[in-house]
Amino acid sequence: MDNMYDNPVNVGFKIPEKVSLKAKQERTIVKIAEVEAGGSDIIIIAGPCAVESSEQLFETARAVKSGGAKILRGGAFKPRTSPYSFQGLGEEGLKLLAQIRKETGIPVVTEVMDTRQVELVASYADMIQIGSRNMQNYPLLKEAGRCKKPVLLKRGMMATIEEFLLAAEYVLSQGNDQVILCERGIRTFETSTRNTLDLSAVPMLKHLTHLPVIVDPSHGTGLRWMVPAMSKAAVAVGADGLIIEVHNHPEKALCDGHQSLSLDEFSQLMTDLKKIAQATGRYIS
Amino acid sequence: MDNMYDNPVNVGFKIPEKVSLKAKQERTIVKIAEVEAGGSDIIIIAGPCAVESSEQLFETARAVKSGGAKILRGGAFKPRTSPYSFQGLGEEGLKLLAQIRKETGIPVVTEVMDTRQVELVASYADMIQIGSRNMQNYPLLKEAGRCKKPVLLKRGMMATIEEFLLAAEYVLSQGNDQVILCERGIRTFETSTRNTLDLSAVPMLKHLTHLPVIVDPSHGTGLRWMVPAMSKAAVAVGADGLIIEVHNHPEKALCDGHQSLSLDEFSQLMTDLKKIAQATGRYIS
Amino acid sequence: MDNMYDNPVNVGFKIPEKVSLKAKQERTIVKIAEVEAGGSDIIIIAGPCAVESSEQLFETARAVKSGGAKILRGGAFKPRTSPYSFQGLGEEGLKLLAQIRKETGIPVVTEVMDTRQVELVASYADMIQIGSRNMQNYPLLKEAGRCKKPVLLKRGMMATIEEFLLAAEYVLSQGNDQVILCERGIRTFETSTRNTLDLSAVPMLKHLTHLPVIVDPSHGTGLRWMVPAMSKAAVAVGADGLIIEVHNHPEKALCDGHQSLSLDEFSQLMTDLKKIAQATGRYIS
Amino acid sequence: MDNMYDNPVNVGFKIPEKVSLKAKQERTIVKIAEVEAGGSDIIIIAGPCAVESSEQLFETARAVKSGGAKILRGGAFKPRTSPYSFQGLGEEGLKLLAQIRKETGIPVVTEVMDTRQVELVASYADMIQIGSRNMQNYPLLKEAGRCKKPVLLKRGMMATIEEFLLAAEYVLSQGNDQVILCERGIRTFETSTRNTLDLSAVPMLKHLTHLPVIVDPSHGTGLRWMVPAMSKAAVAVGADGLIIEVHNHPEKALCDGHQSLSLDEFSQLMTDLKKIAQATGRYIS
Repeated sequence: MDNMYDNPVNVGFKIPEKVSLKAKQERTIVKIAEVEAGGSDIIIIAGPCAVESSEQLFETARAVKSGGAKILRGGAFKPRTSPYSFQGLGEEGLKLLAQIRKETGIPVVTEVMDTRQVELVASYADMIQIGSRNMQNYPLLKEAGRCKKPVLLKRGMMATIEEFLLAAEYVLSQGNDQVILCERGIRTFETSTRNTLDLSAVPMLKHLTHLPVIVDPSHGTGLRWMVPAMSKAAVAVGADGLIIEVHNHPEKALCDGHQSLSLDEFSQLMTDLKKIAQATGRYIS
Repeated sequence: MDNMYDNPVNVGFKIPEKVSLKAKQERTIVKIAEVEAGGSDIIIIAGPCAVESSEQLFETARAVKSGGAKILRGGAFKPRTSPYSFQGLGEEGLKLLAQIRKETGIPVVTEVMDTRQVELVASYADMIQIGSRNMQNYPLLKEAGRCKKPVLLKRGMMATIEEFLLAAEYVLSQGNDQVILCERGIRTFETSTRNTLDLSAVPMLKHLTHLPVIVDPSHGTGLRWMVPAMSKAAVAVGADGLIIEVHNHPEKALCDGHQSLSLDEFSQLMTDLKKIAQATGRYIS
Repeated sequence: MDNMYDNPVNVGFKIPEKVSLKAKQERTIVKIAEVEAGGSDIIIIAGPCAVESSEQLFETARAVKSGGAKILRGGAFKPRTSPYSFQGLGEEGLKLLAQIRKETGIPVVTEVMDTRQVELVASYADMIQIGSRNMQNYPLLKEAGRCKKPVLLKRGMMATIEEFLLAAEYVLSQGNDQVILCERGIRTFETSTRNTLDLSAVPMLKHLTHLPVIVDPSHGTGLRWMVPAMSKAAVAVGADGLIIEVHNHPEKALCDGHQSLSLDEFSQLMTDLKKIAQATGRYIS
Repeated sequence: MDNMYDNPVNVGFKIPEKVSLKAKQERTIVKIAEVEAGGSDIIIIAGPCAVESSEQLFETARAVKSGGAKILRGGAFKPRTSPYSFQGLGEEGLKLLAQIRKETGIPVVTEVMDTRQVELVASYADMIQIGSRNMQNYPLLKEAGRCKKPVLLKRGMMATIEEFLLAAEYVLSQGNDQVILCERGIRTFETSTRNTLDLSAVPMLKHLTHLPVIVDPSHGTGLRWMVPAMSKAAVAVGADGLIIEVHNHPEKALCDGHQSLSLDEFSQLMTDLKKIAQATGRYIS
């Protein structure tokens, strides 16, 4: 696949200095505990939208780990469009994540929304996530750049590739180059899917930057039945990983149940993804 | 103009409770020091993108006040797309704003980006602004809802009307109903203007909510020469106010000079706007 | 308002030769029978979405003419999204238009969709319309350029300003410079209005081209109650005219009834528009 | 992959009758000469943007056929944004296509833009194409529905899935069910790619309709170096085929050279695609 990165491309903007593949020609490997993202292995991150209970988290964590997921996701602080929706368990959720990690050995990633909580979240999580709505929350990006944990940075639903790279540059400019970029769907005129998953962002970002690039097909489509097809496409297009919403009981989920895979669906998907990865010369181990 | 608000409209979503015009049928008047927004007077807010110096701020403040502006704008903390752009003077800028208010008597509005600074900014400003990029920064909205100052909430550049109302609802849900909504242009496929100023948002928002609605033609167009035409349209469409970037030397501005009016252009515009206001049965005093 | 056209603007593309205001510095006056568009008078075009019957057309035509409309609109060939929707009366509708013109003296504009019908439609109409969906139907544009009637060219709902000008250039390149440009709303992510009426297109187009520019607030909003507010804004922003859907019985209309004004609403609107026009130094006679 | 089509989905609109998978539960096989689209074979269509010369077409046709392409593409009537760009060779181009088919045995597809030329184009081509800009050219869709040749219908660059299906319904409503749907990129705010290739349209369309669905990665990205990655993704997501621009000398092409593969690049891509197809249980023979 090397040839596609050799060709010049005029993208109409200046690539920010620290994220640029020209400045640092070796690809960055981001280390989340023992897991390495950005190498030949494709990393699967899976878990529920929100941490709801010890039982939910434990059951889901064990299943996704046994299916081949390398990292557990789960939200403790949830950015909800309505002030009246479930806002997450907060620090209680962080504690549940840490407990499940201890019991199962799987590293965890969780979102941080408030500059005042970066230290707290980083003390529990193996990787902190900055969500789509906060991609241009510059004080938060700077705090993330000062903490010692890797950062999963999601593309804003309204952000151009240029703005996405500049957001990552904010983190790197503070001394933290352990950043994973995540395409999660952009907002377009089309309404049959929740967002429009822009898979061309993957080769574009890998063309321009040395950072690993992963894909979130759950928010990208908003449709459980479409997650498998888009996951396969994401692996084929060259993504370094996926982040997938999985729930032990999607129909009872407190948020995003309609886009969460069941444990069985996730297991089947992993089998299919391994074949695609192999066909592109990569691995899901 | 009343008749246009009487008709039913199916907007395809549920209007949030506290912002809804159904729940509170009397229009909210937002008081910024002695200035009242949301009544028959159309309120003009003007000033530089960023506070740069005492001289710049003082000269601009005097001129816009004498032209008829009721509130001075000026950024101390600037949300810049690139980490390498001028980030604002910070607290120093807040102090300059407070000093100019003291000297000229004009109330000031300035942006806050970080939950840790809401108290600080509110202690200097007469109204705090939450910018487009932070429209879905929920912790920030909640802090704004807990402070005792009016809030100028700008629409996210890719936020639907529903999301905009829900963002305002976050502020009101914390007990602060002194919120002004600001349309400032949305992101579309069109690139000849910086954003697409969605003037239909004004009648739509006034149809659905009791909050005052103002328009930012400077960010909405990104083109100095187009600001007058869009300002006139905003007044004609029924806006309760405008927020306009004005600089004593636009060609030397540290940010957004290309969309800032000169002092003379602002003065001329005010003369034109008064005629339009009058033709619609309102006033710019 | 002249000063706003004097300033340079870098719009990022080359203005096509024949439509450019640089090439022909005098503004084009388009003559539709005795009516002149592009001068100091603001021209109102009004009428039903589709021609339905002699009675409907006659009653509406008389009312809009008496309210001050200068041109009657009405579709005989209708571009409907579904093949199962009412497709228009065809040539029968053209005959009704010609008959009403004869009886009332008001010139008529109607849409043509098929290259094979340009000659037919032009033989009945005083101005032919090329609709939004056909803005890049190049054979149709060329045929329109070869006919001897003025052309009302609507902006495609997905067309940039550059593409819109290039579409007009197709008509002019065939020797017909009697072209009126019409902004009618673009497609964005916002769904509370049918389209997003891009009023900034008016000053932009007038800045770049010598052709008259009008606005269609009916398709631009899709909401009857919002048409008055956006019509006022269109006049204030500098449009050379409006095209408004009006129906003698909107609730019984075969298409677009939800966005059509009643005869009374139209009459009231005209009164309001005249005040705005006067406040900007123009006239609705 | 069957399971992903079994689940219900609420897409928010009514599926048109004749294209609906509910109405006709067996997938339609479209026959282009001897080639079958919509079965287990993935069909590759390749060739230049425009027919330029006998030599260009012959050299390209032989190469793509030997690489595994089943159908040759090439434009004789070109829909160009500017009236001053090369508009295609017209009927001369059709004759060259027919001649190359005779010499090489490969079926050909070419675009028709004008209702007056449907019969002519259909007399030369094995499949007629209706391009993105004409997706809502209803008279053209009806003529295509009355001709006896299969129709390749490209999605409008700003067409929703609903509108795309309704456009296909226009063709089927006239008695022609030999329609292939083609996703070719939609217009969004992102500008680093020419369009945003919406690969989620593939599973969505296959979920809703019985028609074959193919992908155009050349127009979808506008970037030669990105075509291979997006082609692989399109195969992985479940497309029934691809249409790819290939030129014997891309650097000399009269149009779209920047997005055309060289003969060698195409050959290499075919090797890679066969592996992906196999990994998903399908074939490129």
